[in-house]
Amino acid sequence: MTHVRVINPNTALAMTAAIGRCARAVASPATTVTAVSPAMGPESIESHYDEALAVPGVLAEIAAGEREGVDAYVIACFGDPGLDAARELATGPVIGVAEAAMHAATLVGRSFSVVTTLSRTTGRAWELAHRYGFAAACKGVHACDIPVLSLEEPPARQAVIELCAAALDGDGSDAVVLGCAGMADFCAEASRATGAPVIDGVGAATRFAESLVALGLRTSTRGEYARPLPKRYSGLLRDFTI
Amino acid sequence: MTHVRVINPNTALAMTAAIGRCARAVASPATTVTAVSPAMGPESIESHYDEALAVPGVLAEIAAGEREGVDAYVIACFGDPGLDAARELATGPVIGVAEAAMHAATLVGRSFSVVTTLSRTTGRAWELAHRYGFAAACKGVHACDIPVLSLEEPPARQAVIELCAAALDGDGSDAVVLGCAGMADFCAEASRATGAPVIDGVGAATRFAESLVALGLRTSTRGEYARPLPKRYSGLLRDFTI
Amino acid sequence: MTHVRVINPNTALAMTAAIGRCARAVASPATTVTAVSPAMGPESIESHYDEALAVPGVLAEIAAGEREGVDAYVIACFGDPGLDAARELATGPVIGVAEAAMHAATLVGRSFSVVTTLSRTTGRAWELAHRYGFAAACKGVHACDIPVLSLEEPPARQAVIELCAAALDGDGSDAVVLGCAGMADFCAEASRATGAPVIDGVGAATRFAESLVALGLRTSTRGEYARPLPKRYSGLLRDFTI
Amino acid sequence: MTHVRVINPNTALAMTAAIGRCARAVASPATTVTAVSPAMGPESIESHYDEALAVPGVLAEIAAGEREGVDAYVIACFGDPGLDAARELATGPVIGVAEAAMHAATLVGRSFSVVTTLSRTTGRAWELAHRYGFAAACKGVHACDIPVLSLEEPPARQAVIELCAAALDGDGSDAVVLGCAGMADFCAEASRATGAPVIDGVGAATRFAESLVALGLRTSTRGEYARPLPKRYSGLLRDFTI
Amino acid sequence: MTHVRVINPNTALAMTAAIGRCARAVASPATTVTAVSPAMGPESIESHYDEALAVPGVLAEIAAGEREGVDAYVIACFGDPGLDAARELATGPVIGVAEAAMHAATLVGRSFSVVTTLSRTTGRAWELAHRYGFAAACKGVHACDIPVLSLEEPPARQAVIELCAAALDGDGSDAVVLGCAGMADFCAEASRATGAPVIDGVGAATRFAESLVALGLRTSTRGEYARPLPKRYSGLLRDFTI
Amino acid sequence: MTHVRVINPNTALAMTAAIGRCARAVASPATTVTAVSPAMGPESIESHYDEALAVPGVLAEIAAGEREGVDAYVIACFGDPGLDAARELATGPVIGVAEAAMHAATLVGRSFSVVTTLSRTTGRAWELAHRYGFAAACKGVHACDIPVLSLEEPPARQAVIELCAAALDGDGSDAVVLGCAGMADFCAEASRATGAPVIDGVGAATRFAESLVALGLRTSTRGEYARPLPKRYSGLLRDFTI
Repeated sequence: MTHVRVINPNTALAMTAAIGRCARAVASPATTVTAVSPAMGPESIESHYDEALAVPGVLAEIAAGEREGVDAYVIACFGDPGLDAARELATGPVIGVAEAAMHAATLVGRSFSVVTTLSRTTGRAWELAHRYGFAAACKGVHACDIPVLSLEEPPARQAVIELCAAALDGDGSDAVVLGCAGMADFCAEASRATGAPVIDGVGAATRFAESLVALGLRTSTRGEYARPLPKRYSGLLRDFTI
Repeated sequence: MTHVRVINPNTALAMTAAIGRCARAVASPATTVTAVSPAMGPESIESHYDEALAVPGVLAEIAAGEREGVDAYVIACFGDPGLDAARELATGPVIGVAEAAMHAATLVGRSFSVVTTLSRTTGRAWELAHRYGFAAACKGVHACDIPVLSLEEPPARQAVIELCAAALDGDGSDAVVLGCAGMADFCAEASRATGAPVIDGVGAATRFAESLVALGLRTSTRGEYARPLPKRYSGLLRDFTI
Repeated sequence: MTHVRVINPNTALAMTAAIGRCARAVASPATTVTAVSPAMGPESIESHYDEALAVPGVLAEIAAGEREGVDAYVIACFGDPGLDAARELATGPVIGVAEAAMHAATLVGRSFSVVTTLSRTTGRAWELAHRYGFAAACKGVHACDIPVLSLEEPPARQAVIELCAAALDGDGSDAVVLGCAGMADFCAEASRATGAPVIDGVGAATRFAESLVALGLRTSTRGEYARPLPKRYSGLLRDFTI
Repeated sequence: MTHVRVINPNTALAMTAAIGRCARAVASPATTVTAVSPAMGPESIESHYDEALAVPGVLAEIAAGEREGVDAYVIACFGDPGLDAARELATGPVIGVAEAAMHAATLVGRSFSVVTTLSRTTGRAWELAHRYGFAAACKGVHACDIPVLSLEEPPARQAVIELCAAALDGDGSDAVVLGCAGMADFCAEASRATGAPVIDGVGAATRFAESLVALGLRTSTRGEYARPLPKRYSGLLRDFTI
Repeated sequence: MTHVRVINPNTALAMTAAIGRCARAVASPATTVTAVSPAMGPESIESHYDEALAVPGVLAEIAAGEREGVDAYVIACFGDPGLDAARELATGPVIGVAEAAMHAATLVGRSFSVVTTLSRTTGRAWELAHRYGFAAACKGVHACDIPVLSLEEPPARQAVIELCAAALDGDGSDAVVLGCAGMADFCAEASRATGAPVIDGVGAATRFAESLVALGLRTSTRGEYARPLPKRYSGLLRDFTI
Repeated sequence: MTHVRVINPNTALAMTAAIGRCARAVASPATTVTAVSPAMGPESIESHYDEALAVPGVLAEIAAGEREGVDAYVIACFGDPGLDAARELATGPVIGVAEAAMHAATLVGRSFSVVTTLSRTTGRAWELAHRYGFAAACKGVHACDIPVLSLEEPPARQAVIELCAAALDGDGSDAVVLGCAGMADFCAEASRATGAPVIDGVGAATRFAESLVALGLRTSTRGEYARPLPKRYSGLLRDFTI
């Protein structure tokens, strides 16, 4: 059995449970999925500040996963917080949901639009599109301006789906990437409503993570992703000493 | 059961069989893999001319697969010949091995080198790196100058592995992409020898293809990948009329 | 006398004749222009599938031209199908009409818009703009949604010219590239109507092809455009063996 | 008086003092410079892991600076850790030393080389060059493979200066950017030795920060750098609640 | 005292005086600012032709400044005319106002819009954004279509400020760069009116120029900015012989 | 008859005569070529300073050509000095030799190397490659470090040809662009010696200029290349008033 751990970087446990369900629904039968949240950090992630402060908790979860023999990790927040640091720490592969969704989108279309939560996060989405090589494929990043923790309320689902349709038309794009792990369970309905591929990064990252394990691939340790050097950490973060 | 068809675009049947074994070795238990070669076209692909003339055969295999209810396709030649046309024709996803290998490489490292057969094919490898968004991640394309059909001979394996090691050092890259489907079974050994991720696109494409099916994703039909318009084809190619 | 052969990759002979007339009208007195269509392939090219299946016919015409001592070739379809393979096969230069039109456009303005036939072909136009280095100069690709074989009907000319004007204004571009060889004879009228340079790739490619011959330039054989290796071709395509 | 606070993101206090001296040496007479280190985090920063865990301490120092009425901030580690989050939190401008050094380099030359500490950090330097728009100007990133905390030892200075000279020649570049705040006081000597501009980001960032204040410029709050939304933070990080 | 000379490349002396006032208003107390205009050239710069013919006068002013011991230069026209040549001639740093404004804008936001005079100059603004590395950060270049010499008339100020607001909203950008040195004194009011950073390149260039001097940085003479080779100049330009 | 005027921007008349011979040798029979030098400016162009001061003379020649009814212009210096301004002034097309050579190179190969005179000019060559869209196709710019006016001396020819061969091998490129109009008559010999296309921009620009005329194309006047606004010019340059 391959063990994929999905880390929701915020501390909203209901969202963690929903993310876990979405991941399990698409994983292959030979994969065990566990979903966790850090014990420290923000209740939702909607700014660079929130994202930066979510990272220590994500790294603590990676360290815990290593002790338990987890095979691969998914970071389930669309900013992919802590991805580089997590890759240094984990033995197996680590995939971010923005990364996975953008990779999947370019396998089923020439171009994609991103539909996300708050306008202030669109800059980060574009930054990730550049980082992963998909800036030319990304035709637009659109915000519904619904906070992460309000996505569960009934009108949100409809608003997101309508924005998917508008983005496809306005951008002339082939597919939609859902820009928040909290939208994972809108995916099937949005796809039916628009007739286009609508991609949830949680599911995509889970499948890609188990695929990398099956292919015998893990993060390269030749360069920047080598294990961090042992070093003293001070103050509140002293337990991160390795 | 998900049925993934791996199409070797050349007519070298021993290579097709080897490619099929590599694909099956990494597919999930719930996936059936079948490997085929076209009835027409070149015995190996080492030029734009060969590649162009391999495409009608690839498309005929896609058409045959559609009649049989195949769920997803892999095009197992590093030039990804006919990928765009195949996406128009197939109901399910189609993935090229260069595409899959480059996607996988960027999930396990910041950068990669490609190790391929003849020098004359390096331009195509760079073109695909640009097309897929990975031009910045690709640090070098290196040719061993061994023809495709000589890859099975004993010295070839060693030469390819040595070139992998040299490319990693010279380029300062994190991973190696094997630039020919005929190198698929060198992958594990090259990875052990170099201590770096060495990626075979056949395996990667097979896993990604079954993943897209599991995620409910198929090629978008909104734009350029819509089904081709019905039209008369003449001469030798009249049977391609749809 | 320099002999430039213009190959219309589809099998619509009336279009071939019109293309030949446009090429002859601009060629220098010292140039002979012949226009041909392949004996096999699609009657018009409006998808990746059509384009892929037009290529064997184009290559057969290059091979025929080589036997006749043709000096240079023009591939007269805006997707530039088979250009790389043709360059391997031909002794003299080979130019695509999209390539030529984009080169010409950047010699008479900072930027250009493309006006083409069906929306589904806009992705290919963008891909060529990237390939040739003109992605930053190309400000928009606009489709009139008139099929290639309906371009001869009276309303088409007016619709295309109106779209040229709208594209210039909307994109703030300096020039228009006509995105189909079937629009070649709209060029002068569109230019008069818009007051901007409107470029037909057939004429541009013809002049550039004869220019390269006059300059003593032919495709480099140092790298990927070296002559294809001799190799067995099977089935319907066995006659392509070289 | 303009108050510029220089934050050394690691906890090595001797380095903080040296950085403060370098900043003060170049600041204008009308500027007060204070240099601080966080109370939590790593003793030096040489990996993504170190960098990620330095960020909470940096943000705590920004929050403290805001209570004290600081006018502008410099983040004095070459990875520019926490820059985006700090911009959300601070009223005045925030500048990273990598950012400042690259900006300065392109004002005195067409191109630059970066000379940094460990090889594993070169990926981050390239990432920042891309982020800030200087990927084309950056001709190489070179590591001396001396750890940050050994830079004070006598042989380090000589090794760094020799690497500056080698980088200028090998890359054919116009200037050198010193890739670690711990190299700040090598700057004048390296410049004399090589005859080329050698740029220390600490000094450059300090001058640019006071310049932005003089120009009446502060970080835009229109988009992603608006103040973070009030939100509950848990566990070790609960004091970051705002 | 650091002596910064601001060169207004056109011959409109009232504009030169206003530019000098703006530069002095932001310079540090330890800096002397002098503002000059060439004795030859166009009365305003609104085309490539004007710009090209302003350059000899700019270079004559650099030569004069060198004789007087000027420490650094600002070229105060948004096309940054003659910047490369001036760098070869001057001992100290030379900064263009477009360059400075774009650098400053990216230090206070992720993106910016340019607001300029005539539409025909927008191509040059984009070219400079590419040259300096800020093409991705520049979200739009907008013209108010008011000639340079009419900027002093009352309605111009209001029109420019309204265009700043429209550009920020339409482009979704963080900041505005004023695209003409003649707009320098609109800066504070435009900033108040829009609530966004509005950047005048004259001030920014003045502060950056004095900063480079304080940092001991001057243009690299290693490569293309080495002093011009001695050579005979003929005709009207014979006095440029060096 | 089409009249193409070739403007050698420096005042070295022997070089002008040689350039004229090279242009005439490749022009079509229906074209008249005249070659001229300005009455003012530098005797050779080897710096930004030289280039800037060559431009007024180039523009005076364009103005003279317009009075004589010239159909198209070639600017025969590899920095393409004054190209944008000349396009505003001329009724017919204007082409630079760097521009033409790079365009031609990409029509006969995937990539090219530039072989030029002094190292200090390589930055300008790269800048033009970026400007014209050929930065990815340009694999290297190499200087022989022979001054322009020494190119006629016997050893220069051999040194340039050897550098062509070395550049092709070292860069793995398909073709060579000769980076100085003074190398025009080395072209045929260099091509024979290397077996690769070696491109002289003077010839290429002449053929492309007459081709644009034949195609009915002239510089767009819709945007930045509209005729300069009438305006007063002062001092030495007062005669440029239009």
